Amino acid sequence: MSSGRFIALEGGEGTGKSTQSRLLAEALRASGHEVVQTREPGGTAGAEAIRALLLGVEGEGWGARAEALLFAAARADHVERLIRPALARGAWVVCDRFIDSTRAYQGGGGGLSEEDLLTLHRIGSEGLLPDLTLLIEVPPQETARRLAARDLDGPDRIGGRGEAYHARVSASFAGYAEAEPERFARIDGLGEPEAIHRRIMDAVAGLAS
Amino acid sequence: MSSGRFIALEGGEGTGKSTQSRLLAEALRASGHEVVQTREPGGTAGAEAIRALLLGVEGEGWGARAEALLFAAARADHVERLIRPALARGAWVVCDRFIDSTRAYQGGGGGLSEEDLLTLHRIGSEGLLPDLTLLIEVPPQETARRLAARDLDGPDRIGGRGEAYHARVSASFAGYAEAEPERFARIDGLGEPEAIHRRIMDAVAGLAS
Repeated sequence: MSSGRFIALEGGEGTGKSTQSRLLAEALRASGHEVVQTREPGGTAGAEAIRALLLGVEGEGWGARAEALLFAAARADHVERLIRPALARGAWVVCDRFIDSTRAYQGGGGGLSEEDLLTLHRIGSEGLLPDLTLLIEVPPQETARRLAARDLDGPDRIGGRGEAYHARVSASFAGYAEAEPERFARIDGLGEPEAIHRRIMDAVAGLAS
Repeated sequence: MSSGRFIALEGGEGTGKSTQSRLLAEALRASGHEVVQTREPGGTAGAEAIRALLLGVEGEGWGARAEALLFAAARADHVERLIRPALARGAWVVCDRFIDSTRAYQGGGGGLSEEDLLTLHRIGSEGLLPDLTLLIEVPPQETARRLAARDLDGPDRIGGRGEAYHARVSASFAGYAEAEPERFARIDGLGEPEAIHRRIMDAVAGLAS
């Protein structure tokens, strides 16, 4: 029995992860794989309920500690109910954001330490890591431009932040990729979606064997 | 500025914790303290929302890992938003269930290890412990009898279990009390509520200084 592959797409807001997740899932399906396309936070009924709780901020919102635990709980449900069963039956899982987004967004200033975030991942999801993490990279000034151009009802909590914020997030992701080159493929996120998709398919080719 | 006191009431279902929490809060108020009477899971808007998510089990319910993370998230909110601010301004906090209920109910067979549960408590709530934990003890056969006599619409997830289950929970709590005699007072839970309340007031007397 062949076992599946777990591919995560990572990067800041406005880097095209959702579009590329869809194109990748379609291409893998076309080549005969069962594909589960999913996203975080969310992906299962329980995790989506936690996502709604996380985003439905009222009053003071959540503190950094409660927020990190809620994200870890959503991931635990997602991994146990959807990702692990899919991998066990040989499906390919394409997931928009995973543990590296937790490190980039919940860690750092005011948040939890990297060590504590990874401990939560160990306890919640037995430390599951993707077989391949596609880091889509776009220069921060381009990210800021794209997000400003989006026809939003209003700036959301992350998309509404400035270029310096996006530069910090981008640098965090780049650091993770440098530390684990065997798990990451860095993808140039500039250009037409089809061109970026071809770069991703090249990176994924090595996984098929 | 005097700092407050944190008192938790622990024990199995049907041991009279809710009644005794109320009587204790009333007595402390009558002696001039500001008292915050609360409970877990819950106690703040955020924690109550998580409590609803935990109890609103649908489909497969929550796995042990997601459940433990959700309980820890609810506690983190409760501690940060209610308990620590109350203690900081000198109030006495009377809380129906705290970390020892997590150890007794989420740990053990099928659940997380004691070490992982305490790690979640460290990350979520900086390991806050009560100044005094009142363990109300009732023999398991009496617990089973009381719960059977309750006019329930149907047995709930915990109350509907048998005597052997209650004996296991009771033994777990007793073990925690033996391991930390300075934090625990063991209270005989048999007799009239007023008699049990007097035993509790004796145990609390040492905290007032």
